[in-house]
This record gives sequence, C-alpha cells and structure tokens, in this order.
Amino acid sequence: MARLFERVTIAGVGLIGGSLALAAREAGLVGEVVGLARRPETLAEALRRGLVDRASSDPAEAAQGADLLLLAVPVRAIASVGRQCLPSLAPGAVVSDAGSVKGAVVRELDALVSPAGRRFVGAHPIAGTEEQGPGAADATLFRGRLCILTPSAQTDAAAADRVQALWEGVGMRVERMSPEQHDDVLAAVSHLPHVLAFALMNALATANIDFARYGGGSLRDATRVASSSVEMWRDILLVNGAAVEQALARFTGEVERLRDAIRQGDEAGVTELLTRASRLRRGWGGRA
Amino acid sequence: MARLFERVTIAGVGLIGGSLALAAREAGLVGEVVGLARRPETLAEALRRGLVDRASSDPAEAAQGADLLLLAVPVRAIASVGRQCLPSLAPGAVVSDAGSVKGAVVRELDALVSPAGRRFVGAHPIAGTEEQGPGAADATLFRGRLCILTPSAQTDAAAADRVQALWEGVGMRVERMSPEQHDDVLAAVSHLPHVLAFALMNALATANIDFARYGGGSLRDATRVASSSVEMWRDILLVNGAAVEQALARFTGEVERLRDAIRQGDEAGVTELLTRASRLRRGWGGRA
Repeated sequence: MARLFERVTIAGVGLIGGSLALAAREAGLVGEVVGLARRPETLAEALRRGLVDRASSDPAEAAQGADLLLLAVPVRAIASVGRQCLPSLAPGAVVSDAGSVKGAVVRELDALVSPAGRRFVGAHPIAGTEEQGPGAADATLFRGRLCILTPSAQTDAAAADRVQALWEGVGMRVERMSPEQHDDVLAAVSHLPHVLAFALMNALATANIDFARYGGGSLRDATRVASSSVEMWRDILLVNGAAVEQALARFTGEVERLRDAIRQGDEAGVTELLTRASRLRRGWGGRA
Repeated sequence: MARLFERVTIAGVGLIGGSLALAAREAGLVGEVVGLARRPETLAEALRRGLVDRASSDPAEAAQGADLLLLAVPVRAIASVGRQCLPSLAPGAVVSDAGSVKGAVVRELDALVSPAGRRFVGAHPIAGTEEQGPGAADATLFRGRLCILTPSAQTDAAAADRVQALWEGVGMRVERMSPEQHDDVLAAVSHLPHVLAFALMNALATANIDFARYGGGSLRDATRVASSSVEMWRDILLVNGAAVEQALARFTGEVERLRDAIRQGDEAGVTELLTRASRLRRGWGGRA
C-alpha cells in the first residue's frame, strides 16, 4: 500500500497505539514510528517488542518533525499530551486520536490544533479488549472492526481522508458520524456494559459471594471487561457521564419491567420480555 | 468405572440431559438410557445422534423399570414430569433433577417421591450454555465444572452418594449445600447475570441502537446469554424470584454508587470503585 505518513508519533504505546504501530508498519503505511510514553518500562517494552523504531518520554523529542501524531492515551490526557507535542510537529501535520469519547475531545483539540497550523481529525477505532500495555499489542487487532471518524465543522477534508486511509489500511471499516452521535451510541453499546460489569463484580464482593467457586460462563462473560484499565475507564465514564447516565436510565427501566413481571408472577410478561431479548441476541451471533 | 445404574430414564434430552446421556454411557456408568421428551423432533434427533438407546414421549413407557430418573426439564415442569414417571420406576429407584432452582423443587419432589417408595436427590450440574436441544449435547460438557447437590432432611444418604458418583463420573466436582443457600448463590452468580443480559438487549432495542453495527466485544459478552432458552429462564426467574430480586437490589446499589460518583465528577470515588472491580476480576482469569 502507498505510504501515508513519513514519520508518525504515537503517544501511548499500549493495546491500541502499539497495535497500530505494528499493523501500520507491516502494511507499509508509515515510515518511521516514534513511541511516546511516560513510563520507562513501557518504552522499553515497546522497543523490545519492536513496536516502534524509537521511543522517548519527552513529547518535544518524540514529536519532532512528525507528519502524524496519534494520541492513544486515556481520554482526559489527550489534550494535554497533544498540547505538549504540537510545537514540534511538522507544519500542516495531522493530529488524530483513538479516544472512546469524542464530543469533549474534538472540542478541545479543534481549539488547540488549528490555531497552531496543524489539522485535527477525531477518530475512535473500536477494537479494545480488557488487555492493556505494549505486551498486548497485536497487528491483527483491527481487522474487520469498526473505526468511527468524527469530523467537525473545522475538520480538514484531506486530513480526514488520510486518517481514514490509515485505519482502512490496517483492516478496519470506517464510518463517519458527529462527535455527539458517537458518544450516545458508544455510551449504549460499550460504556454501559462496562459500568454493569464493574458494578456486578463489586456487588458480588459486597455480598461475599465466592464467585470464583460458583460462577459459571454467564458470570465470567458478564464481568470480563471489569478487568479493563482503570485509568482508561475512569476517564471515559467521567467525560461521557451524561450520555452514560441516559443509557443507564434506559437499561434500568428494562430491568424494572422484568423485575416487576417476575414479582407479579406474570408468566406472559416474563415470556414476552425474554423472547424479545433472545430473538434479538440470536440474530447477532456468538461470543466476542 | 463401575456401573451405577442399570436403566436410566432421562426426561428432557436437551443440552444437559443429552450431554449426560452421552457422557455417562461413554464412561460406562449406566446401562440402558431411555429418553423422554414431548416433541417427536427432539426424540428423533436424540436417537439420530445416538444420545439414547430408546426414546418415547410417553412417561409411563419411558420410565418403565428404570432405577434412575433424571429430570432435566425446565424447573416448573420437574414435579409434573416426575409425577407422571413415578409409578413406572423400579421400586427404590433414585429420582434426581438438574434444575437451576432447588428450594421449591426439593420441597415438591420430597413430598412426591418418598411416599411413592422412591428416593429423591436434588442436584444442579452447573454447566449450561446459551445453546439448547439435543443438537447441543456434548460428552465433555461437564468436565471440571461444579455440580451442587442439595440434600434435605428426607434425602437418602446412599441415593445421594450414587447421584454424586454419577456426576463425578462425568468429570464434575461435586459440592453439597442446602437448597436455600444454593438458590441465593445461584441468584447472584447466574440468575442475575441473565436478567442483566435480557434487560440490556431490550434496552438497546428500545433505544433503536444498531448494536450489530456498533457493538464490540464488551456488548457481545455482556449479552451472550440473552439468547438462552426462554422456557428455561422464564421458569428459573419466576421460581427463584425472591432471591433474584435480592441479588438485583445489591447490584442496583453498586450501580448507583458508581453513577453518583460519575455524576459528581468524583475522580477518587470512580477510581476506587473501578479498581476494586478490576482487581477482583483480574484475579479470576479470562473468558468462559
């Protein structure tokens, strides 16, 4: 494939950043890849695994002359890491991110990047797992998965096309929507399931249930993502709190409908609610 | 292994009944196996797959002379199917079940089986998946999984030992507890996760979210068991409603703690709740 960027700085060489580094180099989409991370162990592991050509904990050094900066750090760190890298980037460089929340991120980065003569494109490659760190990087992570681009009124069309080509080049389907629509949809399909998994684990602990002894497949799968990165999910939930709360309210309403039908011994009602859920889920296929 | 039963009638030759038929014959634990089911297609498939030696939709015929009756039917059908089979069983025959709720089932069956000169032992092999029917039967289903026996004051000790030997013989760990304790534990580790999966699917539908397009691994795993058998889960939820409601209340309390921390932008609070859940879940290992 044609090379899209000559020098890429990836801030955050964990699951997403590290996997992109691997996949994009494998596909010949990028020239040199420089990793930026705070912790020396992360940098060392990224180098040892060959995810990046160079690595640094200094934003100015890592970003020097890059024509793409990919911010693959927790949501609330995106703007501050972007700000530190910005002056070192090549003029006209593309800045993008991989954050799971887009409204607040796009607003902040639009305000920051354009005035500095670079071009921001918000993106969310939906390919996370509960794993984290450079050790989890996997060149095949993105294949067949969805990446959502969230262009705003300020977004440069050519920059958006290049970011789209990058994610398509590592195997993703790319779709565009507004940052606000993205946040509502992701609250429902991703942020809410994480909230439920965290709460379910904590409820088991509170009740002193020996889940490791008695839990079967349903509990394992229902709680799998509770082991996700605390830092990443703290940021997502705090930044997308309003949309998460709305999705949670809809969910709670459905839980209460089912609970009330059970409480009333309403066989027809329970059957109807279970049948609806079961049909929908069967139409979707198995496990992740 | 030594043969435990000469003639076994399995009522319900779906995932659990069919798998036990396969596994117990493979292990040489049982002689003839007779399948009982209502629907001709189920009987035909059980025969075609070689799960059973004979099959019938007539309880009296299927149970004739059996020294073990295993009731692997939905919870609210256990007593009525047991009642229909009882007169045909060999004198002193063992009657057991595979129901996911034990309090109500043990009370009913104790009252039914002892006076008829047979011996009831409540059991719950925890090995279900979202699949169902004879087509899902799998001789390895039980290996390494837990079976809970729920003896009552009326339970015959020798009969309980034989039922335990049967489940151990197909690879299960067997543990005993009271029917009431079983129902509380299972409400927390199994029935509640199913309620959440059903409600989550219905909430997505209500909000018109295109989950098949935007949902990733977290949603897939969180909703996997929503595709489970409606008949089976309707019965479990209706019969174990009180314990499920208690588990749900604990869960809701944890959801509200997290929601409140998010709403207040309480970074330390969110971090603490996520850290607790994440540590617990990491200690448990991966996917089902």
